[in-house]
Amino acid sequence: MGGQEQAISLEPEKQKLLNEHSEKHFTAGEIVRDIIIGVSDGLTVPFALAAGLSGANATSSIVLTAGIAEVAAGAISMGLGGYLAAKSEADHYKRELKREQDEIIAVPDTEAAEVAEILAQYGIEAHEYGPVVNALRKNPQAWLDFMMKFELGLEKPDPRRALHSAMTIAIAYILGGVVPLIPYMFIPNAAEAVVISVVVTLFALLIFGYAKGYFTGNRPFRSAFETTLIGAIASAAAFGLAKAFHA
Amino acid sequence: MGGQEQAISLEPEKQKLLNEHSEKHFTAGEIVRDIIIGVSDGLTVPFALAAGLSGANATSSIVLTAGIAEVAAGAISMGLGGYLAAKSEADHYKRELKREQDEIIAVPDTEAAEVAEILAQYGIEAHEYGPVVNALRKNPQAWLDFMMKFELGLEKPDPRRALHSAMTIAIAYILGGVVPLIPYMFIPNAAEAVVISVVVTLFALLIFGYAKGYFTGNRPFRSAFETTLIGAIASAAAFGLAKAFHA
Repeated sequence: MGGQEQAISLEPEKQKLLNEHSEKHFTAGEIVRDIIIGVSDGLTVPFALAAGLSGANATSSIVLTAGIAEVAAGAISMGLGGYLAAKSEADHYKRELKREQDEIIAVPDTEAAEVAEILAQYGIEAHEYGPVVNALRKNPQAWLDFMMKFELGLEKPDPRRALHSAMTIAIAYILGGVVPLIPYMFIPNAAEAVVISVVVTLFALLIFGYAKGYFTGNRPFRSAFETTLIGAIASAAAFGLAKAFHA
Repeated sequence: MGGQEQAISLEPEKQKLLNEHSEKHFTAGEIVRDIIIGVSDGLTVPFALAAGLSGANATSSIVLTAGIAEVAAGAISMGLGGYLAAKSEADHYKRELKREQDEIIAVPDTEAAEVAEILAQYGIEAHEYGPVVNALRKNPQAWLDFMMKFELGLEKPDPRRALHSAMTIAIAYILGGVVPLIPYMFIPNAAEAVVISVVVTLFALLIFGYAKGYFTGNRPFRSAFETTLIGAIASAAAFGLAKAFHA
């Protein structure tokens, strides 16, 4: 890329700017996002549910049964949900592509006016963008790509993305969801198990929140705190509601 | 908009193309997306959890306690999760804006080369995009906006969005989650309540799936079928696992 070649000759701090810049594109990856979605919810909801049931003095066996049912349901709901979301995103792209194609054929002047509009928004004059509009009109495929990206802001989706996304979210949810349940497997008295579960899970949330912040380019310590806080609030609410309701 | 003015003089079918076109921008709204996220999960997970616990011959009281704990935990986790996601999206935009600003000041030639690159991808020649690049260099604010949108594909986020998103998702999750639990409130025997819950919830999933398809511009009947299938699979898995585990 011309930009990068030029950058090589820059002094360190300017080079750093550009490195950080390209780095960001890597860290904000879709797989990382899917893992985060799955683990956040997995660590939080089964944890809170287990704590809530313990508050309603259920046995560890019931807590575990409910927890496993929740993890299975949540993984399937999030996984298949993620799959269909990614798939309908791809369908949406196809439909819009077809529609833009039809418009370029049916109403080329209108589409050309839309290109002009897009560039005019940036204070570019007709005599400055004119050649660009004409160049696109001479090259329908490029014109179509331009409209998809700059008018509709749509990127061509990866066909395998839907399945990968589903599996990533589901597995991440299961991995996250099993952590708070482990203590209930070994301690039959839920009132005792919940204490260990709370300690273990809040610790896991801290570490996960830190990693989440690190990989998404947000402040890791703040992310660790926020993620843990959500888990604590959710489980406290579940605990309180279950107690109040069951009493 | 110039495009629209021109469109008025078009024959019906071409006008229709453009109407559908602008229509899509309305239907794919972020609030609709948040409602869909909340209701889909709300109708699916508490439903499957309740079915699962009934499979482990728990009483309606335990099923209801677990269901309420799950709905509270899920609403908080999704709501606060949505809030932080929207907030970090806004922070991300701010950071990128600052970074682009610094780059435009520190390495203007590199940034100008990036503009050229973006336009060159569409087969536009240097002599065609040259005037556009120069126009942007003369207008740093417009240049910055251009880079944010066309290089990074980032839209300026709405500041109130984070809170609205959180509340929309949480309320939608609660509304969806209460539906499958209602039968357990009136029928003490979970083995009987689960039957009504399954019927009521699958019916609700059909209607919701249809509406989801309608509002997101996907085939409504297919969406109704897919959405209901997810709920059925999730609850069957939860039911089976809970039974297997508890037996």
